[in-house]
Amino acid sequence: MAEASRPYRLRLPGPTAVPERIRKALSEPVVAHRGPEFKEVLTETAALTKPVLGTNNDVMAFASSGTGLMEAAIANVLGQGDKALILVNGQFGERFVQIAEALNREADIIEAPWGEAVCAEAVKDKLAGNNYRAVVAVHNESSTGAVTDLEAIGAVVRESDAVLVVDSISGAGGLDLQQDAWGVDVLVTASQKALMCPPGLALASVSEKGWNVIEKDVGKARFYWDLRKARKSAAQGQTAFTSPIPLVYSLREALTMIHSEGWPEVVSRHVRLCSALRAGAAAMGLSTFTKSPMLSNTVCVLEMPDGLDGSEVVRHMYEKYRTVIAGSRTKLRGKVIRIGTMGGISEDDIRTDLMLLESTFVDLGWSVENGTGMAALDAALQNAA
Amino acid sequence: MAEASRPYRLRLPGPTAVPERIRKALSEPVVAHRGPEFKEVLTETAALTKPVLGTNNDVMAFASSGTGLMEAAIANVLGQGDKALILVNGQFGERFVQIAEALNREADIIEAPWGEAVCAEAVKDKLAGNNYRAVVAVHNESSTGAVTDLEAIGAVVRESDAVLVVDSISGAGGLDLQQDAWGVDVLVTASQKALMCPPGLALASVSEKGWNVIEKDVGKARFYWDLRKARKSAAQGQTAFTSPIPLVYSLREALTMIHSEGWPEVVSRHVRLCSALRAGAAAMGLSTFTKSPMLSNTVCVLEMPDGLDGSEVVRHMYEKYRTVIAGSRTKLRGKVIRIGTMGGISEDDIRTDLMLLESTFVDLGWSVENGTGMAALDAALQNAA
Repeated sequence: MAEASRPYRLRLPGPTAVPERIRKALSEPVVAHRGPEFKEVLTETAALTKPVLGTNNDVMAFASSGTGLMEAAIANVLGQGDKALILVNGQFGERFVQIAEALNREADIIEAPWGEAVCAEAVKDKLAGNNYRAVVAVHNESSTGAVTDLEAIGAVVRESDAVLVVDSISGAGGLDLQQDAWGVDVLVTASQKALMCPPGLALASVSEKGWNVIEKDVGKARFYWDLRKARKSAAQGQTAFTSPIPLVYSLREALTMIHSEGWPEVVSRHVRLCSALRAGAAAMGLSTFTKSPMLSNTVCVLEMPDGLDGSEVVRHMYEKYRTVIAGSRTKLRGKVIRIGTMGGISEDDIRTDLMLLESTFVDLGWSVENGTGMAALDAALQNAA
Repeated sequence: MAEASRPYRLRLPGPTAVPERIRKALSEPVVAHRGPEFKEVLTETAALTKPVLGTNNDVMAFASSGTGLMEAAIANVLGQGDKALILVNGQFGERFVQIAEALNREADIIEAPWGEAVCAEAVKDKLAGNNYRAVVAVHNESSTGAVTDLEAIGAVVRESDAVLVVDSISGAGGLDLQQDAWGVDVLVTASQKALMCPPGLALASVSEKGWNVIEKDVGKARFYWDLRKARKSAAQGQTAFTSPIPLVYSLREALTMIHSEGWPEVVSRHVRLCSALRAGAAAMGLSTFTKSPMLSNTVCVLEMPDGLDGSEVVRHMYEKYRTVIAGSRTKLRGKVIRIGTMGGISEDDIRTDLMLLESTFVDLGWSVENGTGMAALDAALQNAA
């Protein structure tokens, strides 16, 4: 059992720990959802969000978890008879496939090995011989730590009639993201990952090319998720249905923190902290599961040595050290552990993570050379400073 | 313009003002959404919710506004070829019709004049000659203040193969509600009305008869709203997708307050305060728009005298007195004003409402006998005490 005095440490790749300042913003009094006070909050929040998504599009907010807006993207883009090309390299790519199935929409799939990402070449080949309404990708596959090269894929999709639909739920707010420059047509994300807020608020932003497809009504079943209604409401500083008001307060506060640190600096911090944690883990003997070139900087996914079940590590970290990291709920169950390196974290967090990981390995009977990992982590931090 | 020192008063029929104690609960640290700490919170919250809904069914929580779960109810109950009977007596009955249309589901409609409710006799007649999968009703039509007699309608629907789907978004937590005893099969509600919480959390609970229909998969398009997944997750003290954690904290706190006051006492308080406000308004010369016998006690809907536009009253109350009441966004626009009488309110709130309403009428050039309304309101409070 953990010592009662130990702090509870939420180190998942989402939901992430919410900084106190943001939690306090949740407590501000609720105001009328269609009044001028909330209009100001929503408008300001949307404006602060745009640079983080790299877009000039309107930003639309929904009371929803991220999955809801993945469904919204599919429901609004794919009409009857439309076909999507879904890129699958992990749990969330698979979720897009399940959503398309649930909504009775056709989809072809390109798979990449888990830990890697589908490349633009493969997308180009499929686009050449088919007539897809949409190419659907996950920016940051938090189940494996692989990042999809949206810039390269965007360049390919841009040349076709298809729209590019992207889930950046665990990317936005931590990773470089250039919706407009890269040609992402429908972008969805959520509050509880790198954006440092609690879960319950999801965001979408759509390009003109995206709207042209969404406006077409060919047997699309959509009401709550209707992005056309959301767009009209956003233009009036409202949401179509009642906003999750405190979560919007919290997002405004989080974005204020992000811009006060400097958005490019926030991205660099994610690079620096995740790289350093990977370096420290490597020196401890734990390799990164994800394959280069594009490693996530919002989640660190580590391979377990033969004979050690990742679930054991996760359980021990929680039970003895009150630190919640993730294992896997997929076919990687037991094989990897995942530590969130996104949101409002600092060097102290990843140093503590590595320290407790070392202790856990020792507790579980694995030999770890004391201090080697931390030295490597610190060296990596120094080099990147 | 309002004096800057005036407090902002949120007196809508939802979202309602959130008591400070509940707002503070929002700020509690976020914990892992699938860990034991949150399981305890969610399980306790569900248990505290059941008496308020009058049910022993599982209670399922969603990150959503109320409308999302209205859609969920339709999407889960109506398969291809199924037909619903929708009872329409206001804006939210109409919304059910729009949802059925958006989801390409067939529906017959029984309309009642706005301000009244569809009676059980009419439902019985339609059920006799048709094969409906569902009868769909709004418990508390907050656009008009009419309450549907669910007990009578439930008794009729129970004798048929149809399931009874009910939106009690603006009823639950303020009005007597007996899901199990009355035979409501699919009940949906939301956090931001009588339940005193901010918007963003919606709840559903389903009878065994309801599950038998929901489990059938005949071309139903559902993923985020899939109640089957929600049920499985609820059994494990989780939600299918990431919970809006702070909103669940807030609901637990709100329900703790409700049970500490005593649930029957909370219902009586709603009766007493809303009746007294109606009595006070009547003495001031403003009649209740809603027709007997079943008047809402969560919203007071007042008819405007000829020549006075309700929107003017709403605007003036806000601009001069910083008190936000509702007009109408429907065909009643200008004809009525609506004041929320639900959630964490007391005698002081309705007394202030009436006082400011009097002042507003005087400001707008209407003659109001000073004090008559308040005397009637106080007398009504006394009589009901």
